[in-house]
Amino acid sequence: MSLVSGQHFVAGSGEFGRGELFTAIDASSGAALAPDYREASDEQIDRACAAAATATTAFAGSPARARANLLRAIGDGLVALGDTLVARVTSETALPAARVLAERGRTVLQLQQFADLLEEGSWVDAAIDHGDRARQPQAKPDVRRMLLPLGPVAVFGASNFPLAYSVAGGDTASALAAGCPVVVKAHPAHPGSSELVGAVITAAVARLQLPAGTFSLLHGRTHATGAKLVAHAAIAAVGFTGSHQGGRALLDVAAQRAQPIPVFAEMGSVNPVVVLPQALRTRGPAIAEQLVASALLAQGQFCTSPGLVAWIDGPGAHEFAAMLGQQLGAANSGPTVHTSIRAGFERALAEVGTLPGVIAATGQKTSTAATAVCPTLLTATAAMVLRHARLRSEIYGPAVLAVACRDADELHAVVQSMHGHLTATVHGSDDDFVRHERITAGLRQRVGRLIANGVPTGVEVCRSMVHGGPYPAATDARFSAVGTTSIQRWVRPAAWQDWPHELLPLELRDDNPLGIRRYVDGKFR
Amino acid sequence: MSLVSGQHFVAGSGEFGRGELFTAIDASSGAALAPDYREASDEQIDRACAAAATATTAFAGSPARARANLLRAIGDGLVALGDTLVARVTSETALPAARVLAERGRTVLQLQQFADLLEEGSWVDAAIDHGDRARQPQAKPDVRRMLLPLGPVAVFGASNFPLAYSVAGGDTASALAAGCPVVVKAHPAHPGSSELVGAVITAAVARLQLPAGTFSLLHGRTHATGAKLVAHAAIAAVGFTGSHQGGRALLDVAAQRAQPIPVFAEMGSVNPVVVLPQALRTRGPAIAEQLVASALLAQGQFCTSPGLVAWIDGPGAHEFAAMLGQQLGAANSGPTVHTSIRAGFERALAEVGTLPGVIAATGQKTSTAATAVCPTLLTATAAMVLRHARLRSEIYGPAVLAVACRDADELHAVVQSMHGHLTATVHGSDDDFVRHERITAGLRQRVGRLIANGVPTGVEVCRSMVHGGPYPAATDARFSAVGTTSIQRWVRPAAWQDWPHELLPLELRDDNPLGIRRYVDGKFR
Repeated sequence: MSLVSGQHFVAGSGEFGRGELFTAIDASSGAALAPDYREASDEQIDRACAAAATATTAFAGSPARARANLLRAIGDGLVALGDTLVARVTSETALPAARVLAERGRTVLQLQQFADLLEEGSWVDAAIDHGDRARQPQAKPDVRRMLLPLGPVAVFGASNFPLAYSVAGGDTASALAAGCPVVVKAHPAHPGSSELVGAVITAAVARLQLPAGTFSLLHGRTHATGAKLVAHAAIAAVGFTGSHQGGRALLDVAAQRAQPIPVFAEMGSVNPVVVLPQALRTRGPAIAEQLVASALLAQGQFCTSPGLVAWIDGPGAHEFAAMLGQQLGAANSGPTVHTSIRAGFERALAEVGTLPGVIAATGQKTSTAATAVCPTLLTATAAMVLRHARLRSEIYGPAVLAVACRDADELHAVVQSMHGHLTATVHGSDDDFVRHERITAGLRQRVGRLIANGVPTGVEVCRSMVHGGPYPAATDARFSAVGTTSIQRWVRPAAWQDWPHELLPLELRDDNPLGIRRYVDGKFR
Repeated sequence: MSLVSGQHFVAGSGEFGRGELFTAIDASSGAALAPDYREASDEQIDRACAAAATATTAFAGSPARARANLLRAIGDGLVALGDTLVARVTSETALPAARVLAERGRTVLQLQQFADLLEEGSWVDAAIDHGDRARQPQAKPDVRRMLLPLGPVAVFGASNFPLAYSVAGGDTASALAAGCPVVVKAHPAHPGSSELVGAVITAAVARLQLPAGTFSLLHGRTHATGAKLVAHAAIAAVGFTGSHQGGRALLDVAAQRAQPIPVFAEMGSVNPVVVLPQALRTRGPAIAEQLVASALLAQGQFCTSPGLVAWIDGPGAHEFAAMLGQQLGAANSGPTVHTSIRAGFERALAEVGTLPGVIAATGQKTSTAATAVCPTLLTATAAMVLRHARLRSEIYGPAVLAVACRDADELHAVVQSMHGHLTATVHGSDDDFVRHERITAGLRQRVGRLIANGVPTGVEVCRSMVHGGPYPAATDARFSAVGTTSIQRWVRPAAWQDWPHELLPLELRDDNPLGIRRYVDGKFR
């Protein structure tokens, strides 16, 4: 019996879908992959959401240790799947096995970090203000506060990270850590990988005797499944990683509900790169090489892939542009996760290609994969970029738009014309950074993460990381999708006033039985 | 020359509006109060927002000390206005002078608390993960993170707190503290009070040589002014306190923008009160007295006014209900802030009155004020409350709905039928709390603040306070509108990776020149 059989998981039970038929596609050959999947029916969506609602109180009230155990058990389960998982992900996404293994490692690390966070316990941000009955003119009440889970979270798997941003990825890990039941909508590009991971989570929930509604996994090929999930009254928040179009559509559904809910969608980003004059002169070609390597990682399917590079014309500019052209021209085409990504890439290039003055040069069309895309260097003047918003928005795939600016004012104008992005990268000498402070200040306003003399790809998973940014990089710049602070998306503060002491959560009792860091009467203790 | 002349303040300059004419109304007599006001024109709205946008970078980059000075100067200015302000507020709102003085004290306290927060400095939540070039397989970057202001915030003054939730109230104080320019839309019920406070802020901004666009004050009588403000591309976030209808309208405008922005609206709340059996038996009449006093404070115009009380029929129930009726029946009518509040209260009572089986009993119609409302006790069965959602939503004003439940199951069902509220209050003995844990758990899920054996009115301004809650108590339960944590509504995390050390914000430098608490390499230091 194959481990992949076309199943959804609704509150602990594996079952087949009852909607439209679809299959995964081998991302290299384009052939259909067994088994068949059917989209979730309305009844299945409703049942998964209702079970999540039923599980809410018990799961929210489960000891932090129990949730930490769940996260570690999921991580162990992913590793235990071994080659089965790696092979299925590789078939469904054309990502090489080494990359899949690295991504699995990151996924397990994320789960562990949230388990550590729960076991340490201070993340609930406990605060205590003791009362004072003798205060004049009014007695001071005893007020205590900590973070509580929002309730069921709908998580949308991403196409480009079939593990780290999918069924057991960062959104699921942070939501489960917070004490929120999760209903995952699997990405249709990798239903088999999703099913394997969903089975691991379902088994872990059962083994640890957590409420069955803690986790469900639904499949859907069309947007309808996701829209119904977000519209469901039981859902309290949404996590999404994907296209601007997809994220905005879910945001709009959530906003139109009788009871609007928060949506954290991490969407498209151009991740602009700026090369300042001294860096251009002293190490232009090396920067170009580094930039192209970053832009071609996984065929440009990283959220933080650099899609635009701008510089000021001057010494080194010619060599820089030449090296960009040479590197991209010599690069090979390769497979993406899905034919829809290839189609989207080619459509975007066609849109941009109709703009007068935009020059496109492609790399080597070596790949015969059905999903293959070809690295492309686009060149446009700064005036063109200022005129056409399309040139300032994402082309998802291995394309870089090169923009030579006449002077610092024009480069500044290009920066000022930009909307929000996840990252911006600046190459410069110390002197460059000082001289062009208004350029970096303009970028600072527009991005979640500023990088000096590096590449935007490769997101370090740590407390200081910010993966998010002003719209449309994300729908809510106040949160990060990566790092342990991402748990803050799924919680709300709650206060207890003059509450019976022995009925307070352990986190708020005077003797601090969990030994967590708290803010008590004006001081961290 | 009167201090009140009908002015708006647009980025430092006093000017008259150019839209529709309106005046304040003396809330006691109903007479028009001089001077005339004109609504802000589109051009004035645009100019205020553009100036705020222009001020954004400089104000965000201003030293924390400069913003603390601004907040203290505003507080000093409010006090220096003395009787002028108190008299104008009293005329415009019919709130007694003692209450206005107390509210001014709270407003000044809020400004001081944010000044203290800025001077202490740790609120920026700085985190540093040092790099490690030798790490395998990849070098670890140096990543540092802190909170940055979102940009211009639109603040809507509330009718019921002409000082503490208006021009220099909690929303403005927290936004200015965060480094966000503020454009206030004054509440049309108290334009003169708003003008006086707006002049104080404008003068303080000028004297401290902060950017002129840091603060603007616009008047508007109709919803159009506010909607245009929220739709303006320069506005990055919205703070609102008021009705559900008003808050939801602004949320919808914000959601439909090309670039959606966060809205924190604190809206209607019933603030349910539950009296458990032993408390009912041993001190029912005292609870009834306390409850009625809370419900009648400022004619029920507190956000946290208790609007529904439910109990289980049994010993003490009769005496409790009798005392409720006696207290409310003996209570006098009194003026509200505006005739529109009287009209809304009477409309709501009429709506509820059409429901079969709802019994209404009113107090003494002693007040002749144009804005006067009469305390009202409504009585309905639990079955009625379960059937009609209108009985579970706010009636703004001095009305209490009394609901006797057959048994604990019916009381539980009533709790489970409720939407989100700011607070819930439970009266009970220790034994009551243990026996009826599912009732309190149900309330916990639905409110921001749980209160034992007290009243919901009177919001302690402290770190542990939560003033907010699940929708529709607020549009985003993840934040509080009161207490220093309310600054989190207006900021976003931002990361710097491998950034030149001497160009990092002071908060993120290795030597920690500001001496703030930071999370460095896995530990708070």
